[in-house]
Parts: sequence; structure tokens; C-alpha cells
Amino acid sequence: MIKVGIVGGTGYTGVELLRLLAHHPEVTLEVITSRSEVGMKVSDLFPNLRGYVDIAFSEPDENRLKGCDVVFFATPNGIAMKMARSLLDAGVRVIDLAADFRIKDVALWQQWYGMEHAAPELVAEAVYGLPEINRSQIAKARLVANPGCYPTAVTLGFLPLLESGYADSERLIADAKSGVSGAGRGASVGTLYSEVDGSFKAYAVAGHRHLPEIRQTLGLITPNVESVGLTFVPHLTPMVRGIHATLYAEVSDDLVDLQRLYKERYLNEPFVDILPVGSHPETRTVRGSNHCRIAMHRPQRGRTVVILSVIDNLVKGAAGQAVQNMNIMFGFAERTAIDMVPLLP
Amino acid sequence: MIKVGIVGGTGYTGVELLRLLAHHPEVTLEVITSRSEVGMKVSDLFPNLRGYVDIAFSEPDENRLKGCDVVFFATPNGIAMKMARSLLDAGVRVIDLAADFRIKDVALWQQWYGMEHAAPELVAEAVYGLPEINRSQIAKARLVANPGCYPTAVTLGFLPLLESGYADSERLIADAKSGVSGAGRGASVGTLYSEVDGSFKAYAVAGHRHLPEIRQTLGLITPNVESVGLTFVPHLTPMVRGIHATLYAEVSDDLVDLQRLYKERYLNEPFVDILPVGSHPETRTVRGSNHCRIAMHRPQRGRTVVILSVIDNLVKGAAGQAVQNMNIMFGFAERTAIDMVPLLP
Amino acid sequence: MIKVGIVGGTGYTGVELLRLLAHHPEVTLEVITSRSEVGMKVSDLFPNLRGYVDIAFSEPDENRLKGCDVVFFATPNGIAMKMARSLLDAGVRVIDLAADFRIKDVALWQQWYGMEHAAPELVAEAVYGLPEINRSQIAKARLVANPGCYPTAVTLGFLPLLESGYADSERLIADAKSGVSGAGRGASVGTLYSEVDGSFKAYAVAGHRHLPEIRQTLGLITPNVESVGLTFVPHLTPMVRGIHATLYAEVSDDLVDLQRLYKERYLNEPFVDILPVGSHPETRTVRGSNHCRIAMHRPQRGRTVVILSVIDNLVKGAAGQAVQNMNIMFGFAERTAIDMVPLLP
Amino acid sequence: MIKVGIVGGTGYTGVELLRLLAHHPEVTLEVITSRSEVGMKVSDLFPNLRGYVDIAFSEPDENRLKGCDVVFFATPNGIAMKMARSLLDAGVRVIDLAADFRIKDVALWQQWYGMEHAAPELVAEAVYGLPEINRSQIAKARLVANPGCYPTAVTLGFLPLLESGYADSERLIADAKSGVSGAGRGASVGTLYSEVDGSFKAYAVAGHRHLPEIRQTLGLITPNVESVGLTFVPHLTPMVRGIHATLYAEVSDDLVDLQRLYKERYLNEPFVDILPVGSHPETRTVRGSNHCRIAMHRPQRGRTVVILSVIDNLVKGAAGQAVQNMNIMFGFAERTAIDMVPLLP
Repeated sequence: MIKVGIVGGTGYTGVELLRLLAHHPEVTLEVITSRSEVGMKVSDLFPNLRGYVDIAFSEPDENRLKGCDVVFFATPNGIAMKMARSLLDAGVRVIDLAADFRIKDVALWQQWYGMEHAAPELVAEAVYGLPEINRSQIAKARLVANPGCYPTAVTLGFLPLLESGYADSERLIADAKSGVSGAGRGASVGTLYSEVDGSFKAYAVAGHRHLPEIRQTLGLITPNVESVGLTFVPHLTPMVRGIHATLYAEVSDDLVDLQRLYKERYLNEPFVDILPVGSHPETRTVRGSNHCRIAMHRPQRGRTVVILSVIDNLVKGAAGQAVQNMNIMFGFAERTAIDMVPLLP
Repeated sequence: MIKVGIVGGTGYTGVELLRLLAHHPEVTLEVITSRSEVGMKVSDLFPNLRGYVDIAFSEPDENRLKGCDVVFFATPNGIAMKMARSLLDAGVRVIDLAADFRIKDVALWQQWYGMEHAAPELVAEAVYGLPEINRSQIAKARLVANPGCYPTAVTLGFLPLLESGYADSERLIADAKSGVSGAGRGASVGTLYSEVDGSFKAYAVAGHRHLPEIRQTLGLITPNVESVGLTFVPHLTPMVRGIHATLYAEVSDDLVDLQRLYKERYLNEPFVDILPVGSHPETRTVRGSNHCRIAMHRPQRGRTVVILSVIDNLVKGAAGQAVQNMNIMFGFAERTAIDMVPLLP
Repeated sequence: MIKVGIVGGTGYTGVELLRLLAHHPEVTLEVITSRSEVGMKVSDLFPNLRGYVDIAFSEPDENRLKGCDVVFFATPNGIAMKMARSLLDAGVRVIDLAADFRIKDVALWQQWYGMEHAAPELVAEAVYGLPEINRSQIAKARLVANPGCYPTAVTLGFLPLLESGYADSERLIADAKSGVSGAGRGASVGTLYSEVDGSFKAYAVAGHRHLPEIRQTLGLITPNVESVGLTFVPHLTPMVRGIHATLYAEVSDDLVDLQRLYKERYLNEPFVDILPVGSHPETRTVRGSNHCRIAMHRPQRGRTVVILSVIDNLVKGAAGQAVQNMNIMFGFAERTAIDMVPLLP
Repeated sequence: MIKVGIVGGTGYTGVELLRLLAHHPEVTLEVITSRSEVGMKVSDLFPNLRGYVDIAFSEPDENRLKGCDVVFFATPNGIAMKMARSLLDAGVRVIDLAADFRIKDVALWQQWYGMEHAAPELVAEAVYGLPEINRSQIAKARLVANPGCYPTAVTLGFLPLLESGYADSERLIADAKSGVSGAGRGASVGTLYSEVDGSFKAYAVAGHRHLPEIRQTLGLITPNVESVGLTFVPHLTPMVRGIHATLYAEVSDDLVDLQRLYKERYLNEPFVDILPVGSHPETRTVRGSNHCRIAMHRPQRGRTVVILSVIDNLVKGAAGQAVQNMNIMFGFAERTAIDMVPLLP
């Protein structure tokens, strides 16, 4: 049994972490902090947890957190970077679900996130928590940067194509659609029900913070390139959970068997599912689960391939992947507590 | 380990049964039948089951079903009554998720369901599978009539009030709202997305088949009455899962503590949750789970009390309750495989 | 041509007023005020108005408003009561879409709305703007209190039954379901898409501000009673527009023809539509329109009748009724600018 | 006043045509046919039309249709091609909302639509009814092929870029998202509420029938090319109305002012609205209206431009464009009956 702390548990990644950890046989939830809700029972805020989580929100108290084996940050950007150092020094392992440690180039991070980095010296140490590329480093990591939701769906979709060198890495397009829960639980006009329901839109076409994150990872996995050329357009979809990434790449003629390339790459991955030829994954087939389902198409035998990749943004795109990382870090079976059947319909 | 068969698994209660049974440690799924999808892998029809259910649909073959310990009927009305006799004779226990064995008065059943009953002699034997009133009979039952979704939400909501004799049993009103999955997975214009989304309506106000079922149970639990006076109005709500029953009853002055009445009645019930005074249960707080959450109000201290009762129609209102009944029938821990945290958001 | 001003146009009733007035041939939009959005073009905030409304939000300037023939208040409660006096003195007619002048009993109003009334002397003068009961007074009114959305749907549904004396006015139940736009466009967690979608709940069961408003009107139209006994339970439905009121009343045996009673009462009403016997009105059949559709049922020939009444909360429940009132006040054809076909699907 | 007939009015384009024509001052609705609903009042099937459309469905009777000035086909593919010849011979003008006359290459049409063409000799005569490119031919046309919904959104989005020769016509990508009403009102499992709600998916990636239609038009408007290279991926979005096309093209360095290019091209178009620089059009801003709103982006000043184009699939993508074409054909003001403010929220 390990002791777990959560900093900032009032958002959707917070409640999702709690849902998953509530059934984890190796975990005791020690502390969950929230400045705004001190003293409130977690299950009063999130009644789905009644009978499963009995703890109340408390002040972010460093000493209590230091008594944990691992601390998750389910906070806005800019919080984990201020608290990570002292926790790590106390021997606590840290998994940040926000973006503080995702981008290796600190100057680039500061430019996209609009603040100074409080712990640049930890950035190099942090391991990017995508098990499908970094499993062994995650196992040894003290500090894990849990990937963003879009980066998870997009990277897993492009991965076999770029690693293998078949794609023109200068001409990548990621057209991604997200459910509204990705925008968080903060009060804002833009994510009101009456603003979002029955409507569809793109946003941040000029540049979204997940662009440099995706570009960094794709650059690292593609042989012989410094950087990739990627156009990334996120969209808001009238649904709560789910990301659907539609990916476009131009491939060379010698790519013969797309299906086999992907099947082999993900053969041993517990949470990546390559669908049969000709499939169209639906986001609901991963709802509430840690799976990523992928299908590949090459319309009219042309040079452009279309990759379809779906995840639940709150699970594989956030809390589930965080638990997967924790499982790897502590040597638990990787599927523990995240091996549930998706909810359909 | 018991062997389980499912007859008719292509609907929503079927896929939900499979989701739950996939994680049941005491169960092997032996056979699942469907005339229309013979040979198709279950997980091709319902890709959420990929990796969890490996079986294919087969012809309804009585011999294979007779090799099971228990058979669930997730069929339209009128199927179970034709097959139950021979299965029971073979020592198989039967749980019918349809309505064939719910109404004790066969003539009344025939009137509401518009067909002749094929096994009237089994009706008396069948146990109405609402554990909160019939747990000990369910344990011994060969044949369980799993309650309807509306009857579950309405009956659990009225139960303490009627059992205790505080309510005027002549003036009960149940205004119930259901998600669309309750209408099933059959192709029909009325439940198309574009017909249902963004709109709300009542239906079957003149008389819904769940009315006699509710009335029968309420009559049985109310002391000193032959029958109750109930107005039941179902509504279709633009959401997939969930039933919200708003119940109205006039109570006598000597009812002092509504909250206590309900808390005590359901004290030992694993799946009935009485919310704190003043609460308003949301259907999402039971999504994907077997819970029923109930809150009671007495506006302006008047004689009319308002009971709010929510369930997931596919779980506590169908497949989850069926598994709960199976657990009771076979002596498994009652929460096994249905003790999951609801999915929120 | 009359000059129209709107105070507070950044909410949903504001944009809806603009949608309707944009096509009104007798109206010039003179001024629209908003403290928070001064200088912003209305069509930048609401791009559906591009090409139809060219004006920008301005400071609430009393002198400009005094140059109007009529001023609509599409503000929160408590604003109109402070500005109405001076506008009326300047000869401007006022239509308040908020609640400031709806309740005749000022003490009662203060109790439910939690503030002191700034213009109690105007309350008596104000005409309750439900044309179906007050058309002739509206025509002469200087100050119209536009009814609430729930009160409109509920009152029109009960009206013929209570006026005629057939119903037991001590035992009325109104179970009402509203789309989310009724909660307004203010940022709040409770009306976020991810909080509301796929879920259903009751709220304010202990007492909603529309309760005294409904009770007042029902009391006035019912012969020989001081007040009526009404239980009112509002619910939040996952859809943007629409109210569906399900009304329950006990009727006397001498009520023979429910259908005829309603048909005759509303024979000459341009916006009340009595559906054929046995109908179930859907909210989408009034989407974007000023209609109220009503159907009546008497299940199993019992003493309880069920009335189903639907409106679009933003049109007949707010902006459309306000324009209807304006048309009556200024002698325009009553249907002008609000005679559009509902949007279905 | 002209006499109008509609063949096949029981689908969504049918009810939408009726909604628009109901307010058209130059039109009398003479006949509406439906084999399946003969004798049923249109307003019984679509209660939103109560009080606006008083006609009933009748048998498809050629003689009655020949008495019309114009006949709309709101039918499945393959009907209009059988009836058009005799109507045209009788002097009736025909607007086909299905696909029978859209593709000039009859063999190609037969390949994509899987049937033999019944009137290949009419294909050449038919005018593709996109007013923004064919207004003058439409004015003179006897037979108009109303464009598909996707083709309308995609073509209007690419048009200025391709006409001007700035884009690489070999590398076009159209990632399009549609509301569910585009799939029609036929009963089918795939478009049930419970299958679609809360989920997002691509479909027909291997090849959608709108691909050759788009390719044909883009080929015609692009100087110096025989055909264009286009990857087209349609997606199903959980909403009723709306198409959002996200278009990607590589442009040459000498394209200096994207905004100006589009503004100038559409300067005189009544239904194409170029949004301010940096905008993201939402489908709800065109709901119920005939507008197409477009915004252009060039992320990070790269060679890839992103065009965002939204329409209401039932209006500009079907019935509204058909009425626009009729207005042009008969010399009515082009905006007549389709100049309504979109419904928001």
C-alpha cells in the first residue's frame, strides 16, 4: 500500500483521479487539497463518490504531502513547479497532470505559457509520461510530466508512421476534436451549456499550447529530423468526454502495409487498440476507460493517409494515464484500477 | 464459477450485462444468442467490449443454454415465457429482464401487453426481483422477474412512505423522466437523434405498461389496501442514461421526520443512498452504477411531500439489478461486479 | 415607426429580443445598453446578428432612453424598479422582462427576492403582461410586467380549468422542466456544459421565486378563492430552449369535455394552440416561436387530469411575449415580427 | 404568385422547405407528395407547421405536378431522374435537392451511386445550383441540381483560394463535421439518439459520395487544371444542424492578403459572410439561416492556410439554397423568405 496525495482536486481531472484510485488495491488516499473548498467533503462536491471516498478537502499543507509516497498535481499550470522541489527532496514522487514539466525548452515553455518557470532545473529531469514511448524511464522517474490530452491522442496516432520514417514529417496535419470537459470546471461563459450545445467550432487556430508539446515529441521520435512541420487545429465538440484526432500525412510509396506497421508497434501495449482495417473509431467506445483506439485509412490508394485516434480526454488524456504512470513507477501491474470496460451507450 | 447464458444480447441491456459480467470473478460467459447476428463477434457490434468479451453471437440453442447455471433474458417481451419452462426443468435458473413474469394477474398482463401468456403457471412462482423488498425470496428463486426501470425508481421512492402508512395511497403521482436508452436499440424514427435532441415530451399519458407493475408493488407494500391510486406520467429526456422520478404524495400530520423514516428503511441497503436534507439528486451521480439516490422534500411545510429518486435505467433499472439478483441467488457478495463508482462528468 | 431602447442586452433574452425586433417593420432600435460591454458591437458578441443589427452597446444613459417610445428591461431583477419612474415620467412606456413588477404584494416580493423594492408605488399600476388574460389592460398600460417563463407555461395550462371552477384549487401540482437557457448567460459552474449534459435534476424544490407569481395569477382567475394550493417543482433538462409543464389537477365529475373547454377558451388566441385529443406536445414544436401548445389527458377516466403545456422559454416565456405586449400597447398587429414557424428539427 | 410542388416531403429537407416557403410571399404550395403518408396532414407529421401549412400529403400524381411552375424533389437519390423529363416537357422547372443531376460524368455518377442513370441526356443541361458561381445560368435554368451539404460548405471555403490560383490544388484537405440531420429521417440504428449522443466519429473515409461532387466543382473553378487532389473526411457530430468544414491548403508565398482575397470575392454575395481576421465561426451562428460564414487563418505564418466554413446543412446546404435558386430562377429578390436571423442560442 502506498500513500497518495492530490493537490487541487476540485476539477474534472481531480474527480476522475478519485474515481480510479477509489478502486486501487495498492493505494490509500492520504490527503486531497483545495484552497477554495477546505473542510468540504469530497463526496459533497462530487456525489458520485458517496460511499467510495470519505475524505474532505484540506489546505495545501506541505508537511502532510511530504508524508505521501506520490503526489498528483491536478492543478492549473504553474502550481506544481513551485511545490515539486521540496516534495522531491523529501523523497516523494510527483506526477504533474498540468503542463509545467512537459516542454524541455524552458524559454519556449515560458513563451507559450506566459509565465516564468519556477523550477527550470527540474525540467530536464522530468520524464514525459507517455508509457508507449517512455515506459522504462517512467519506472525510474521521480518526476513525471503527464502528457496533455491532445498530445496523447495525436502522438499515439502518428507514432508508428513517424518512427518508421514513412511519412513526410514536414507536412503533418492534426485536426482534433475535443469534448467540453477538456476546458475544465471553471465558471466561464464560453463553456456554458447554452453556448456549446448544438454547435461546433474550431478554436486557437493561430496557436494552441499543445502544439509545441506535440511537435517536441514527434521531433524526438522521428529519425533524422530536428523538428517536424505540423498544423494543429483543435475544435470544441458538443459532448462531455472524448478526443477524436483525425491525422493526415503523406507517405512514401514503399509503405506497403499500414495495418501491420501499427499492429506490430502496439503489439504489447495494454491500452492501445488497433482496429480492423476500414474501421472508424467512436469516442464512446473508450468512454471512461484508459484505451486509445486507432484506425488507419489510405483513401483511393493515394499518398495521403488518414489516421483516426480516439481517447477519453479525462482518462488516457489525463487521470488514467497518470494512474498508469503511477503503476509503472511503483511496480504495480500496469492495468491496476484502470482496466475497466468503457461505458456504452 | 458459474456458467452464464444470455438470450438476446444485441440491445442496450445486453451490452450492459456484458460490461458488468466481464469483471465478475465468479462467472464464465458461456453463450450469448441472437438470431439476427449469428456468428458476429460481440465486440464487433460493441467495440467497447474489445479485449474483455471474446465470444460471438450464436443461434438460440436450448441445449447450450441448458448447460448454464443461470440464463438472462435480455429480449423483447414474450420470449422468456416461451423458453423458461424447459430451462427451469433442466435445473437452470432464469432471470428475465423483460416483463413476462412481472404481473401476477395474468389477464391484466395480457391486456397491457397485447398477447397471450405462454406460461401462466410460472407467473405465480416468479419472484419480483427488487432486492429491497424481496431479498430472501430472490435467494431461493428459480425464476426472477427483473423489475422495469420506471418501477424500480418509483417504487424505491415511495416505499418507506407507503409501508409506514403515512401517505394517502389514493392520491399518488409519479412524474418520471427517462433517458432515451430506455427505448432500446431498435431502429425507429421516434428515437432518432434529430427527433429527440433538444426537445422534451411526455408520452403514453393515457397508460404505460409500467403503470400496472408499479401499482401492483405499491399495493402489496401498503398496509390495509387492495390497490393504490396512482397517476403515472413518463417523459422522454434528451440524454442517454438515467431516470428521475419526481413523486408526490399527501401525508398525514403525524409524519414528523421524513429523513429519518427513509434513512432507517434503507439503512442496510447497499445500493440505496438517502441524500442529506434539502438535496436534489442528479441522474449523472448514478451513471453507470447500480445506485438509487433519493431525497425528500416537504415544501412550505405543507401536506404534499416531494420525493426525488434517480437511477441509471440500464443498471439499477435493468442489467445491474439483474446481476444483483444473480449475486443473491448464488450466494455471492451482493456488490460483486456492480460496485463501481458512477462516471461523472 | 417607434423608437425602441433595450437596457441590458447581453443575456439570452437580450439577443432574442434583438432577433425578433430586427424584422419588426414598425420599430427602430435606438439604443441598447450594457455597462460591461460599452462600445462593443452587438453583432461581435452575437454573430448571428451580423447584417441585421448594426448598433453597439452603450452606457445606460437616461437621456437617450427618454427619447424612446418604449424601453425593454432585459436586466437582472432590481434594475427596472430603479429606472422606471423617470422613464414613465418622460412618457416612455416600459416593459420589464425581469420580476420587479410582477408581484402585487410588495412585502411578499421583498421576501422572495431578498431586496427592498425601490418603486412600490408603481407595482399597483403595472399590468401583468399575459395577453391571454390581460389584453385590454396591456393595451392601455404604461408599465408592463412581463411574466416569468414558468408562470407563462403553467398559467396557460391551468387557466381554463381554474377559471371554469372544475378543478380542486387546493390540490394543484406543476411539475415543470426547463432548458438551460432559462438560467441565463452568466458564468457559473452549475450551468457549464459538462455539469448539465446527459443529466437531469430538480432544483429549488423548497421554493422557487416563480411560485408566488404563479399562485397570485391562479388565485386571481379562480372564482371564489383567496388563494390556491400549488406544489411547484422545477427541473433542469439537458437542452437549450423549451419549457414543458406537466400539470395535475383533480376535477369534478361534471367536467364532461376537457377538449372543448380548452378549445373554446383559446379560440381567438393567436399563440395558444390546443392539440388534438391524445397528443403529447414536444418542446421542439415551439422552438424559436411564440406559441404555447397544450394537450389534455384524463388517464383511465380518473379524477386526476394531466395537462401538458410547452413554450420556448426565451420567446413566449420572455422576449416574444414582450414583443407581443409591445404590439398590443402600440396597436400593431399582434403577430407582427413574432409570427415565425418553429425550427424543427 | 407561382405554384409550387414538392415531391417527397417527409424528410428533414422537406419540412425545412415548408418552413421557408410558408412565409414566401410569391409562392402558393400546390401539392406535396409522399407515398407513405398519403392523406396525412403535413402538420400532423410536423406539428411546428400547425397554423402555417394546411395541406395534406398526396400520391405522386404527375398531372397535379405538371400544373406547378416549379417542383422541388426532396426525395432519395434516383427519383428525380425518373420524373424530371416529363415535368420539364410540361414547362415545369425542376429543382432536385438529391444528387441525380450533380455529376456531369454519368459513368462516374453511376459508379458512386450504384444505379443506372435514368435520364443521362438531362445531366448536361442541369445547372449546378451554387449561386456564388452559377447565378446567371441558374436564372435561365429549367433544371437545377441543388448542391450537397458538404460540397456547399467546402466549395465556398476553397473558392477564392482556388480561383485565384494561390493554392496547391494537388494537396487539398477537407476535414468536415456534420450534424446528424444530414443523415436524414429514416429509421436506422446508426443515427439513434443513444448511438450518437456524447460521441464523435469519422465515417466513409474510404470514399464519400460528396467527394466526386466537390472535386468536380473545384476542378472547374481552378485555372489550368483537369482535376484537383482532395482528401475529404466527413465526421458525425452530436448535434442536429450544422456543418463545419476545416480546410487545409498550401499556398504560394505571393499570397499576401488572405482576408482581402475573400472579402473581395464575396463582396456582393448576400449569404456569404467573411468574418473578421482571427475569427472562429460557430455553427450555431448560422442555425436556421441560409448564411455561410467563413474565417481564414495562416498559423505561424506557414505555408499551410486553414479555412473555417460553416453552414446550416438543412438551409444553405439544402432547402434554403433551393429556395435561393428558385428566387433567382423566377426573378424574385434573392433573399425572399430566406432572410432570417439565425437562432442563437
